[in-house]
Amino acid sequence: MKKQLIYSGKAKDVFETDKDDELVLFYKDQATALNGVRKEHITGKGNLNCKISSLIFHYLMKNGIRTHLIEDLSDNEQLVKKTQLIPIEIVLRNTIAGSFAKKFALEEGEKLDPPVIEYYFKSDKLNDPAINESQIDSIGIANESELQQIKEQTLKINNLLVQLFSQDKLDLVDFKLEFGRFENEIILIDEFSPDNCRLWDQISHQSFDKDVFRKNEADLVTTYKKVLDRLEGVR
Amino acid sequence: MKKQLIYSGKAKDVFETDKDDELVLFYKDQATALNGVRKEHITGKGNLNCKISSLIFHYLMKNGIRTHLIEDLSDNEQLVKKTQLIPIEIVLRNTIAGSFAKKFALEEGEKLDPPVIEYYFKSDKLNDPAINESQIDSIGIANESELQQIKEQTLKINNLLVQLFSQDKLDLVDFKLEFGRFENEIILIDEFSPDNCRLWDQISHQSFDKDVFRKNEADLVTTYKKVLDRLEGVR
Ligand SMILES: Nc1ncnc2c1ncn2[C@@H]1O[C@H](COP(=O)(O)OP(=O)(O)O)[C@@H](O)[C@H]1O
Ligand SMILES: Nc1ncnc2c1ncn2[C@@H]1O[C@H](COP(=O)(O)OP(=O)(O)O)[C@@H](O)[C@H]1O
Ligand SMILES: [Mg+2]
Ligand SMILES: [Mg+2]
Repeated sequence: MKKQLIYSGKAKDVFETDKDDELVLFYKDQATALNGVRKEHITGKGNLNCKISSLIFHYLMKNGIRTHLIEDLSDNEQLVKKTQLIPIEIVLRNTIAGSFAKKFALEEGEKLDPPVIEYYFKSDKLNDPAINESQIDSIGIANESELQQIKEQTLKINNLLVQLFSQDKLDLVDFKLEFGRFENEIILIDEFSPDNCRLWDQISHQSFDKDVFRKNEADLVTTYKKVLDRLEGVR
Repeated sequence: MKKQLIYSGKAKDVFETDKDDELVLFYKDQATALNGVRKEHITGKGNLNCKISSLIFHYLMKNGIRTHLIEDLSDNEQLVKKTQLIPIEIVLRNTIAGSFAKKFALEEGEKLDPPVIEYYFKSDKLNDPAINESQIDSIGIANESELQQIKEQTLKINNLLVQLFSQDKLDLVDFKLEFGRFENEIILIDEFSPDNCRLWDQISHQSFDKDVFRKNEADLVTTYKKVLDRLEGVR
């Protein structure tokens, strides 16, 4: 089923399959920071992120969100629909943290109401610059109707995931999504894992996400395992 | 009439007047670049920018745009309505140039259709970071309805000024505006001059704006004088 490697990313390898419109995502035991400048081998990370992301995608699909996920193939492989990638990272923020706090000199931890939605142009060469809706439309990255769909899906996903994580006493602070075009639809692609969101314990305010790696605060595998355990508890 | 100096900016001094809701803007003989790091005294610049800005504001007002301009007081002073400043710089781009070309690795000179609208948070301390509509709304800098009005006004102003400058064989490449709140309305404030727009000769593609200073391409006063002459020609 898995054939040619077509892309080796920072967190996953992407393989072609026998079918033109299907891909295999292989989750690597690798963590990066600073846009790939810092890179470490971390045994067990691939399995954890693959499981967490599968669990979340299944939950979203059960609740009406269209995603690329076809089937879990193994502990670190997923069969997904091959989409035409929209090269934008969509970031939603429920709470002020990270680069957003720094950029506008705001207090970490304050709630954002309504949540903030940001876009970044996916380009390692250009360092993923922030981009706005007018620029996305005018440059031709996505049209207005596609952006509208992306925004609506992102807000729905946020509502669903805020609920899911709060059952596990975790606050969903912010997260990053990617979308692709598939048969005239815009669907959720890539992954949802502690690599691309912030989760804060509702009581202790401890991080349960990649910030433990970025800030050398705790062991990544131990931390991600706790997230998976909490999520599996509510299933 | 002019009383206390209340703000000394990079291009203008702002004075209180006898009236609570009026200000005097004094246009300085000073040019800056790199957010104020480079600063030069340039005799004659204040007069030119004051005249160009007055001429353009009168033209906009004649065509239905609400602005702060009450009266020209002298060659370098204007009496204006004192507004509650909205700390955003609105940039509209008809053609790719400058920071926009660099940020997204795009070709200078290509037309943007529709034009791009960008927002920058006016904060010298934070280096005027780019900000999007969702951030502006959520942080509480301006609400959605205000942003809508600002966008509509900006597009109207663009149409009017593209026409005006094209009569003088100049392409309006991009420009920066500021708006303020006055008696429950959003009105155009600050200035419109070659300091905060790009104007390219339609034939020679030469710059008739502050880029001649930024790039040391030509004398600023000679260049701005040509812009004023062309504009006065069509009056
Ligand atoms: N369903 C899909 N269709 C097309 N591309 C996808 C799909 N899902 C994920 N991708 C892309 O595959 C790559 C996954 O590898 P990853 O390690 O996340 O890469 P990166 O270092 O670029 O973030 C990403 O570029 C992602 O955008
Ligand atoms: N009508 C107005 N009401 C309130 N503030 C205004 C008005 N017109 C201009 N301003 C503000 O006055 C200042 C003008 O000085 P300027 O040299 O342009 O300052 P800066 O260096 O901050 O750009 C700016 O901060 C501008 O936002
Ligand atoms: Mg990725
Ligand atoms: Mg100014």
